[in-house]
Amino acid sequence: MAKPAHTSYSEDPKIDALVDETIARVADKWTLLLIEALEEAGPRRFSALGRDVEGISQKMLTQTLRQMEREGLVARTVFPEVPPRVEYELTGLGHELAEAFCGVWTWAEKNIGRIEAARAAYDERNS
Amino acid sequence: MAKPAHTSYSEDPKIDALVDETIARVADKWTLLLIEALEEAGPRRFSALGRDVEGISQKMLTQTLRQMEREGLVARTVFPEVPPRVEYELTGLGHELAEAFCGVWTWAEKNIGRIEAARAAYDERNS
Repeated sequence: MAKPAHTSYSEDPKIDALVDETIARVADKWTLLLIEALEEAGPRRFSALGRDVEGISQKMLTQTLRQMEREGLVARTVFPEVPPRVEYELTGLGHELAEAFCGVWTWAEKNIGRIEAARAAYDERNS
Repeated sequence: MAKPAHTSYSEDPKIDALVDETIARVADKWTLLLIEALEEAGPRRFSALGRDVEGISQKMLTQTLRQMEREGLVARTVFPEVPPRVEYELTGLGHELAEAFCGVWTWAEKNIGRIEAARAAYDERNS
């Protein structure tokens, strides 16, 4: 069994901790669903993103976009119109994360059947 | 700009919704840090996993492992010893997710500097 490539990257526990911290910040379902939405749709307004990502609340959308902007994943542009138009789009860093995350999407799509079967078996055993 | 491969997978909104649901379940920081720990260390006892994953509470560890078992990512083996020994290890599906997630780890390692710079700039602008 090959170890994941990342284990060979660093023998420095400080770097490892930083990477874990970064993963913890981006490995959030709303962040990833927003990255997907922005990668597919391009620049998007707040209200449009709220429609793209099913089930996200206004509060969670605000909070997640702010966090993503802080991490450098999303750029926020305010157009000086009346009323002001605000658009969000992925930065280069955000696009790179979307691409890196592609493998997980492919995995999910390929394995939906196995996951559903595992859940059904687990629920059967534990009911 | 290339669209992520997953967008070409399905034109069926029902499949898309299932994939999003699956992503939402696995895109959780504790799940991903546990997958990393199990991928690096192989079969592991509960208490050892608690040490591997910094900051995870007993309750969150129990809950996350149970959820991962339900999704078919982790197998739980009880050895008939006194006291019983319980070990957790990745299933084939779990290993495949670990490999799929590798790209995100590589992204994080490569871009720590850019992310830290983005955060500092954001905090500067918003202070």
